[in-house]
Amino acid sequence: MPVVSSKGNAMPESPIRKLVPFAEKAEKDGKHIYRLNIGQPDIKTPIEAINAVKNNTLDVIGYSHSAGFESFREKLSSYYAKHDITISSDDILVTTGGSEALIFTMGSITDPGDEIIVPEPFYANYYSFSTQSTVKVVPVVSKIENGFALPSINEFEKLITPKTKAILICNPGNPTGYLYSKDEIKQLANLAIKYDLFLISDEVYREFVYDGSEHYSILQETELNEHAIVVDSVSKRYSMCGARIGCLVSKNKSVMQTAMKFAQARLSPPTLAQIASEAALEAPESYYIETVAKYKARRDTLVAGLKEIPGVKVSLPKGAFYCIAELPIKNADHFAEWILDKFVVNNETVMLAPASGFYSSPDKGINQVRIAYVLNRRDLKKAINIVKLALEKYND
Amino acid sequence: MPVVSSKGNAMPESPIRKLVPFAEKAEKDGKHIYRLNIGQPDIKTPIEAINAVKNNTLDVIGYSHSAGFESFREKLSSYYAKHDITISSDDILVTTGGSEALIFTMGSITDPGDEIIVPEPFYANYYSFSTQSTVKVVPVVSKIENGFALPSINEFEKLITPKTKAILICNPGNPTGYLYSKDEIKQLANLAIKYDLFLISDEVYREFVYDGSEHYSILQETELNEHAIVVDSVSKRYSMCGARIGCLVSKNKSVMQTAMKFAQARLSPPTLAQIASEAALEAPESYYIETVAKYKARRDTLVAGLKEIPGVKVSLPKGAFYCIAELPIKNADHFAEWILDKFVVNNETVMLAPASGFYSSPDKGINQVRIAYVLNRRDLKKAINIVKLALEKYND
Ligand SMILES: Cc1ncc(COP(=O)(O)O)c(C=O)c1O
Ligand SMILES: Cc1ncc(COP(=O)(O)O)c(C=O)c1O
Repeated sequence: MPVVSSKGNAMPESPIRKLVPFAEKAEKDGKHIYRLNIGQPDIKTPIEAINAVKNNTLDVIGYSHSAGFESFREKLSSYYAKHDITISSDDILVTTGGSEALIFTMGSITDPGDEIIVPEPFYANYYSFSTQSTVKVVPVVSKIENGFALPSINEFEKLITPKTKAILICNPGNPTGYLYSKDEIKQLANLAIKYDLFLISDEVYREFVYDGSEHYSILQETELNEHAIVVDSVSKRYSMCGARIGCLVSKNKSVMQTAMKFAQARLSPPTLAQIASEAALEAPESYYIETVAKYKARRDTLVAGLKEIPGVKVSLPKGAFYCIAELPIKNADHFAEWILDKFVVNNETVMLAPASGFYSSPDKGINQVRIAYVLNRRDLKKAINIVKLALEKYND
Repeated sequence: MPVVSSKGNAMPESPIRKLVPFAEKAEKDGKHIYRLNIGQPDIKTPIEAINAVKNNTLDVIGYSHSAGFESFREKLSSYYAKHDITISSDDILVTTGGSEALIFTMGSITDPGDEIIVPEPFYANYYSFSTQSTVKVVPVVSKIENGFALPSINEFEKLITPKTKAILICNPGNPTGYLYSKDEIKQLANLAIKYDLFLISDEVYREFVYDGSEHYSILQETELNEHAIVVDSVSKRYSMCGARIGCLVSKNKSVMQTAMKFAQARLSPPTLAQIASEAALEAPESYYIETVAKYKARRDTLVAGLKEIPGVKVSLPKGAFYCIAELPIKNADHFAEWILDKFVVNNETVMLAPASGFYSSPDKGINQVRIAYVLNRRDLKKAINIVKLALEKYND
């Protein structure tokens, strides 16, 4: 029998993979599950996007340009301008989700065996995409004690080798909710320039920043033009994860030309979804404001609730819609399994994402979970209460 | 300045890349171009698909299961049953176009430096996807003189090394229109079993076979269960290339599990497009019959027209909607450029795809072009007439 590749074997499973059978069983047993484990928002997609799809007049759903509709890229360029990011439509390549932008980035800048430095905990699929490109993820650990702030530049420098091609950050961060300050971005920029590295910033949660903070993009650092690659997506911004539209943004012409070769090979990003995404850009300012207000209120509810649970450590996320919580237990994988399998309150239970999947260092994050606040506050409160009671029972 | 990867540099440009500026200039000059160069059909998408999208009731366009909607996979399984292919929904992974199915296949079965044997000329992006996976394409040449029939099994055996992981065929073929006979498939099956290789069959043109021939899928060879991987797509079948929906089909459980890890990493295939694709399966039998009749009539018009041009060699395609034509010229790249740039009949010109891009062997196919018959017959006739007059002038 012919066998799969070593690369295929090395591809990680999704962090919640082992929990899925337990969740399926719980649902089959009629239990309701509050899903705190996934980044699938419940927020409504802008009506402009939905209507554009409903009113489309295509009679042939044809390929689009491999870089995406020109009209869409023009509008994206205006969208960035509103965020003080000066980018022309030529600097934008429309991709099939932010996921594909990450894959194109890795493909365009790395060869097998190259290294990418990533502050951890990080979005678990960075590891998958690196494995897919046979690239090594070199983690630099950020700590819950410091609210997951940027590790000192020293820590990065220690890890740079001739194989290092890039530093990859997520800003604001999944799973930490950390928002890099302008000063931290400048430190990273200097480092990238000093060692001639790419700086990749995943900014798919750009809109979701709280407490009056401002998001500072690496694209605002003009000296970084040849180094900066931004990964973006409509998935979270407009709660249209299933559209599968994102983009890769860079002023480095060779990067864009190379990424374009990957884009041409796969022909085109989805057409219907581009129609939806282009229309989503017409959503009124109020859409963003209301969405951010909702997430902020949920965050406050979540963090306040978690802080009331004895032994739980959590740092206030400044952006995105996740937080990492440290629980008074030994092993979060086991706890998450146990809670789905054995624990109910009024026939309801919760699904948590064990945080070890967001670390590539072994033994890191073992007693942490990632919680996504993509539920309404009433449900969030109920879910936190279940976690609280579960911890009492579990530790009994 | 940080530089792009060697892999990125090695990614090929699209075969018509060099022609694009000439086409753009021609259009700017007000010339009409008959596009014989691309596989973008003009056939209407089934109304069932269009309506399903228009009538969707989503208010959140959410991620789907990473393997695609279960309901869609069930219906695909019934679709295959109609083609005498017994496949359960678990053997099907919905992908973002046939393109992604090819990428997942390469990722799942190859490591850097591995080899895949491909009869050439082949779909140009096989080379791109291999380069992306740092895999070597080993071509085995099929000849226009034999109507691009399967090269002798001997020729394949000579090329097998310890690095060989798979044989990749396209059936019916882009760019040749060749349809493999049941006997040829059996020969390849025996070879795959003998050398423990995967046999990958790209069957995205399955429905388009002419003259009463029948398509024989590698999935119909039961001894091949552990070896067979089929790449499929709704792009051409339902003229919905822009949907970006395809699938990977295999009964090999480790292949499916591995491909699923790639699928989970990129989260989900497009949701709106899955709604459209699931509905397309409800298109009546008449949709397929009329589409095939149209292509057959076009093929006949095209081939008859080409045969009337002195010095042109062409073999009757038995499937798909392309043919390779050998022209009485030295260099098809130059001719294709010249015709766009310098030649018009009533202010109209044609765009051809030089065939060298479909060969990985250097110096092969230099005087050949690929012609897609995706225009109506009236336009096809006009386009062939332009090619005829252009050849006269060019050779003058
Ligand atoms: C940090 C981050 N980057 C990228 C993605 C990819 O999202 P998509 O491919 O839907 O744009 C996600 C999705 O959860 C994410 O959290
Ligand atoms: C032979 C072949 N395979 C695969 C594809 C990929 O098509 P898609 O990704 O649109 O399914 C094409 C497109 O032209 C093709 O001709």
